[in-house]
Amino acid sequence: MGGHIVTSFDDDLIELRARISEMGGLAETLLALALDSVEKRDSALADEVITKDKRIDALEFEVERLATQVIVKRQPLAQDLRLVISAMKLSTTLERIGDLAKNIAKRGKHLSTTSPMRVSGSVVRMGRQALAQLTAVLDAYAKTDVEAAISVWRRDVEIDDAYNAMFRELVTYMMEDPRTIGHGSQLLFIAKNLERIGDHATHVAEMIYYTAKGEPLGDDRPKGDPSDLEPRS
Amino acid sequence: MGGHIVTSFDDDLIELRARISEMGGLAETLLALALDSVEKRDSALADEVITKDKRIDALEFEVERLATQVIVKRQPLAQDLRLVISAMKLSTTLERIGDLAKNIAKRGKHLSTTSPMRVSGSVVRMGRQALAQLTAVLDAYAKTDVEAAISVWRRDVEIDDAYNAMFRELVTYMMEDPRTIGHGSQLLFIAKNLERIGDHATHVAEMIYYTAKGEPLGDDRPKGDPSDLEPRS
Repeated sequence: MGGHIVTSFDDDLIELRARISEMGGLAETLLALALDSVEKRDSALADEVITKDKRIDALEFEVERLATQVIVKRQPLAQDLRLVISAMKLSTTLERIGDLAKNIAKRGKHLSTTSPMRVSGSVVRMGRQALAQLTAVLDAYAKTDVEAAISVWRRDVEIDDAYNAMFRELVTYMMEDPRTIGHGSQLLFIAKNLERIGDHATHVAEMIYYTAKGEPLGDDRPKGDPSDLEPRS
Repeated sequence: MGGHIVTSFDDDLIELRARISEMGGLAETLLALALDSVEKRDSALADEVITKDKRIDALEFEVERLATQVIVKRQPLAQDLRLVISAMKLSTTLERIGDLAKNIAKRGKHLSTTSPMRVSGSVVRMGRQALAQLTAVLDAYAKTDVEAAISVWRRDVEIDDAYNAMFRELVTYMMEDPRTIGHGSQLLFIAKNLERIGDHATHVAEMIYYTAKGEPLGDDRPKGDPSDLEPRS
């Protein structure tokens, strides 16, 4: 190690990681802004999310371009190659998270003109859980911390549980009072997008594991029971 | 076109596409077997899915290896590069579909020992819808048929609707008769995995579009309303 070529590959990786880190930071910002726009019924914040999402889209192509260049120039093998390919896959995942945040913001705009509903607070809290998972997994990526990645992967069950509990709660409200249906449907969509962001965080955790270990993370991840009416066995 | 290097790149692409086609065929088989195992409460079929999923995992690495080789050897640009990168991304998506099918099969095994429930039939029907979407999008990929890809992308709303209707139906059953909770929970999980397979089919449709056009497919896809208690506006 320490030779000229190795150093240059390291430089390439630093640049790739810098782009991923920019994308990750943006994805976090978009999600945080989207949640704020839902909480405060603030249309201007929602518009900011919609505009900023374009930057993530552009960064995805930038990462693809850089990663391809590195493969051509350095012809990396084994773990080095896994690092480059995982950067490319991660960029796709972060772009999808940005899309989901944008979708949440768009739905937040519909909420701003209708009556509030007690359950909005739970949706925003679930959103902060998803944001915490995203932050933790991006941190694990930056530090190549496999243990931290595994614990994000295991914690996803909590978001699944929150989603399933909220689904039942919202459906019950809407059945009791049909005037809440319009508002409740938007909240259900938002909750569903948040649950998906949680899923993407687990995909990132799987990539971190695979890149470091060269083998896939098992598939015995605890999963949120969509009924949750029975005690976890 | 028609020169020596172009022809060789085409040969590489044919090999890449052959691997993707093998993966796609396997993903379809796994899903079909998983649905059969649920329908017939057949544990042996479920075990077959679990075993065959290993082959998809191996193919994902094979596609990554091939795609990287092609990038190094041919240094493709523009649409050629998009073709190679989309093959790599598609392999990840197909691997995830295989995982979801395996998860369905595992849950199908739990069903085999418990009492039947009327709603199982709807879950299997929803599964056949998801399978039809998967088949259609793989067909669109093989033929580079952008129009067919767009129609798969638009049709995903039907699976979302089926999932949301089933969720409410199952929750209602379980509330009325707590003895159905164990069975119903497994069915909910299966329905959720099927809905996710539908989502992955739309991701493939987006890749086909992007590879052909060089720009992303818009984000105005009709989405299934998780309430569906109100008429679609």
